[in-house]
Amino acid sequence: MGFFGLFGGQKKNSASQAKERLQILISHERQNRQGPDFLPAMQQEILSVVKKYVEIRDDQVNIRLDQQGDASVLELNVILPER
Amino acid sequence: MGFFGLFGGQKKNSASQAKERLQILISHERQNRQGPDFLPAMQQEILSVVKKYVEIRDDQVNIRLDQQGDASVLELNVILPER
Repeated sequence: MGFFGLFGGQKKNSASQAKERLQILISHERQNRQGPDFLPAMQQEILSVVKKYVEIRDDQVNIRLDQQGDASVLELNVILPER
Repeated sequence: MGFFGLFGGQKKNSASQAKERLQILISHERQNRQGPDFLPAMQQEILSVVKKYVEIRDDQVNIRLDQQGDASVLELNVILPER
């Protein structure tokens, strides 16, 4: 599955729900795993940036950190309620 | 070959092929397209955050902004050189 294939798994069900969804994927691929992985620290800062643009509460954010082969993948999912 | 000849021959190539790749995907999906799209502005700030963690030059960054159905998708690709 390509990197883009990670997106778009869920289909929209009803058009009447004006939901906004924000997804952020960060993939860090390296041949030599030297040095600490900076993704966990970076995720907090990126989330702070996002919060400047959209009003989100912490419980609307789903964060997952995965290993996929040589890559560390950080996934942030934000579902914004209707407004 | 003497004992000292065993050393020093094979130590050049392991680190030189260590390419790192960083990919960032941001997808913003909304039913109602009201208000300006904030992705272009947000990308600059996110890139600034990334630059705190990895040393990258602007010419190593490839940025693409796409529309995919209801979603604006921003893609940042960074290829970090051998070091």
